Amino acid sequence: MNRRHFFRNTTLGALGTSLLTPFDSLQAAEHALSFKNKKAKNIIMLVSDGMSTGTLNMADLHLRRHTGKSSNWMQLYSDNKVTRALMDTASASSIVTDSAAAASSWGGGVRVPNGALNVSQNGEQHLPLWQKFKKAGKKAGTVTTVPATHATPAGFCVNSKSRNAMEDIAEMYLEHQFDVVMGGAQKYFSAEARKDKKDVFAAFENAGYQVFKNRKEMLNAKRRKPILGVFGNDALPYSIDRENEETLKKETPSLAEMTQTAIDAMKDHKQGFTLLVEGGKVDWAAHGNDIAGLIFDQIAFDEAIKTAIDFAEKDKETLVIITTDHGNANPGVIYGGDANDHFDSIQNYKHSNEWILNGFNPDTTLSQIKERINYANGIGITDEEAQTIVRYYDDLVAEDGLYNPRHLPFGVLADIQKRYNSVGWISMQHSADYVELAMYGPGSELLQPFVKNTDLHYLMLKAAEVENVF
Amino acid sequence: MNRRHFFRNTTLGALGTSLLTPFDSLQAAEHALSFKNKKAKNIIMLVSDGMSTGTLNMADLHLRRHTGKSSNWMQLYSDNKVTRALMDTASASSIVTDSAAAASSWGGGVRVPNGALNVSQNGEQHLPLWQKFKKAGKKAGTVTTVPATHATPAGFCVNSKSRNAMEDIAEMYLEHQFDVVMGGAQKYFSAEARKDKKDVFAAFENAGYQVFKNRKEMLNAKRRKPILGVFGNDALPYSIDRENEETLKKETPSLAEMTQTAIDAMKDHKQGFTLLVEGGKVDWAAHGNDIAGLIFDQIAFDEAIKTAIDFAEKDKETLVIITTDHGNANPGVIYGGDANDHFDSIQNYKHSNEWILNGFNPDTTLSQIKERINYANGIGITDEEAQTIVRYYDDLVAEDGLYNPRHLPFGVLADIQKRYNSVGWISMQHSADYVELAMYGPGSELLQPFVKNTDLHYLMLKAAEVENVF
Repeated sequence: MNRRHFFRNTTLGALGTSLLTPFDSLQAAEHALSFKNKKAKNIIMLVSDGMSTGTLNMADLHLRRHTGKSSNWMQLYSDNKVTRALMDTASASSIVTDSAAAASSWGGGVRVPNGALNVSQNGEQHLPLWQKFKKAGKKAGTVTTVPATHATPAGFCVNSKSRNAMEDIAEMYLEHQFDVVMGGAQKYFSAEARKDKKDVFAAFENAGYQVFKNRKEMLNAKRRKPILGVFGNDALPYSIDRENEETLKKETPSLAEMTQTAIDAMKDHKQGFTLLVEGGKVDWAAHGNDIAGLIFDQIAFDEAIKTAIDFAEKDKETLVIITTDHGNANPGVIYGGDANDHFDSIQNYKHSNEWILNGFNPDTTLSQIKERINYANGIGITDEEAQTIVRYYDDLVAEDGLYNPRHLPFGVLADIQKRYNSVGWISMQHSADYVELAMYGPGSELLQPFVKNTDLHYLMLKAAEVENVF
Repeated sequence: MNRRHFFRNTTLGALGTSLLTPFDSLQAAEHALSFKNKKAKNIIMLVSDGMSTGTLNMADLHLRRHTGKSSNWMQLYSDNKVTRALMDTASASSIVTDSAAAASSWGGGVRVPNGALNVSQNGEQHLPLWQKFKKAGKKAGTVTTVPATHATPAGFCVNSKSRNAMEDIAEMYLEHQFDVVMGGAQKYFSAEARKDKKDVFAAFENAGYQVFKNRKEMLNAKRRKPILGVFGNDALPYSIDRENEETLKKETPSLAEMTQTAIDAMKDHKQGFTLLVEGGKVDWAAHGNDIAGLIFDQIAFDEAIKTAIDFAEKDKETLVIITTDHGNANPGVIYGGDANDHFDSIQNYKHSNEWILNGFNPDTTLSQIKERINYANGIGITDEEAQTIVRYYDDLVAEDGLYNPRHLPFGVLADIQKRYNSVGWISMQHSADYVELAMYGPGSELLQPFVKNTDLHYLMLKAAEVENVF
């Protein structure tokens, strides 16, 4: 019996994008097979740092409900263009990794303790993958929305007992002559801010780098010359804040813009290139239970996916890897009669919780609190709820946590917002969840359905046909 | 260059199960292709109700760390035997579904409002899939660990405006002559307990059914005769409680045992069979933030996967579908210095939180509380922590929630345990997360990487080559 006849008398036509017909089945397998035994000249690895399943899901849901279109990541699934896996993200010291050990698993191919960059407990150093590819003749670069010297890009590039040695890491990038280094935090490069007063910017310039300190300079980048682009004094702003503040939008590039600049700078190199693209503030937003920070930075990451795939589809010799290094806070939309309206209210948010809370201090009044939250989130919180923020500043116990140096009441605010947006969080920390991983292009056919993070190190070498003999 | 040479001088041999070699790549695609255009004579659909990503993950982590072996579900991935997808689980009324609407999406092929079984908002009824397969000459059955008449099995079998009409649903099962109906809750079948005093057990017997009310009877089932097996007065006990109480173990079957009995009862039927297997108490455990209930019922579900796959591997004409209907509570292991030890401490748990809390009442003393938790969890909680339970019974506000008719302090207990086991929860409700889905056997090649829940209805018909002309 011909399977084409099974849909007679059904309303399948109305069922949306994932309609099954005999013609589109097996495309993923066939798509991957079409690249079989082809070499990946280039590799672009995109990491949405700290992205739980719910983060991927909420960004896609948000886009579908707001724009009628799915995320680029999910569209790759609907179009059957990628192979997929679940990835076990553990480190040598814990079932719950930090970003340094996670990046090291990919970078060095060996699990190291949390906090270390490609250095094992016994001191053994593991040659980072981007150095291997440089030795094999390729160009190599990293772009991120957090400090350019932060754990994830650093894990692909350098060895360091501690991820915190960010001033040293800035110099190591130059020593190994990575071809593109972009991200935030001029404080690790400028003579004025560094403890040792070294002018690392000048050192890069003297070595022939184009040095960019704002978006406009970056958009005028010359091709083929190496790039150091460092924007602002710490991480780049959250996408939603950048979108709603003209100065930020003018001064700092989006992740997709950095990605495009990096690709353009390296794509003409005969032996190919490797590029890491990190949506680093997705993780920071999860640490802050900061829903607008989270969803809109995940969407900014998703736009960088499009930039990479658009290039790879034309290029045909580029492996694109899309994943995260670990879950964080396991956010999700919670069941209830108002779940749809609540979740949709996030479409009206104008700013991150970081932006909201940076406007408060121990002297802020109840009505100022209500007003600022109303402006940023479009919700009228109750006096009682605003009081929990006022009280926070009276208490002796301040909120702690990564990326919260000013001890802002992120947890208190998220708890208030939850009643209006139906989004919950399990903590302000990473989780042990297995994570989603997708691959496009030559080498994608090598992906197994369940992998350890370290497997990717060897997969990338194999896909690029670079012998692991360093 | 031969890709086999890339692993020279590496320690890849030590890297575990997902070792990449040129020989095992593409097996999944090839495995699915080997079934291409073969008909699924039988379908076994296994649903771990309310299973968030973290639930799948924690059960696998628990097994790996405790026994050295992965879960059967993840082993299917490591062995490259299945196709996979992410599934959008929304209902007609909400981005967060309930189990009735979720089962209806599969059962009727149409999204209906939460609470309904294959009945749309406008009253339109959609013919349930197990009735379609019966009309096509197949046998059809359901087994579950919650009431046999509960939302998930009912959604495959009947039409009802409300999932709560469980006494009616018991009779509908007989009316449509489903070949296997097994699960909990004799109260919906026995003359003594039913409001209408009908003896539905007798009605089934008169219609030629074997009626089982305990495990021993079930294990002596005769082949080919239809089965009604109803155990206990409500849902079956949690696996961990069953494991540690001889009476429960003797009286009630495991999910894997019910699955084997159901397969044996239907497998000789010339036109094939369809079977739903629900791990229903995974959802109830998530509603109770009950970690031991959750992990060990997920493992019991995982054992039923093995039963189904073992049959399908020999049979070669059986499509096996493994998934969940929605996330619930998004649990996960939280980052911290003690995460490993904390998570491993769950290996020593002897009982569910339901069991613990059923032993408390307003008169229970502080030391009795500490003693019972110490016995069940192997942890010595502080007086202050035990006081939060004592205080719960003094407060006027009692915990509510699904499957908590006695208003037990599930949230209070989970909050205490979190400090000792590092497991967090976002709520006591379902979530909107996209969920994991895997398929084995003929028809598995039809699976697209991103599907809506309703798509499965049509995929099953197509895989079985049953024309949708009812």
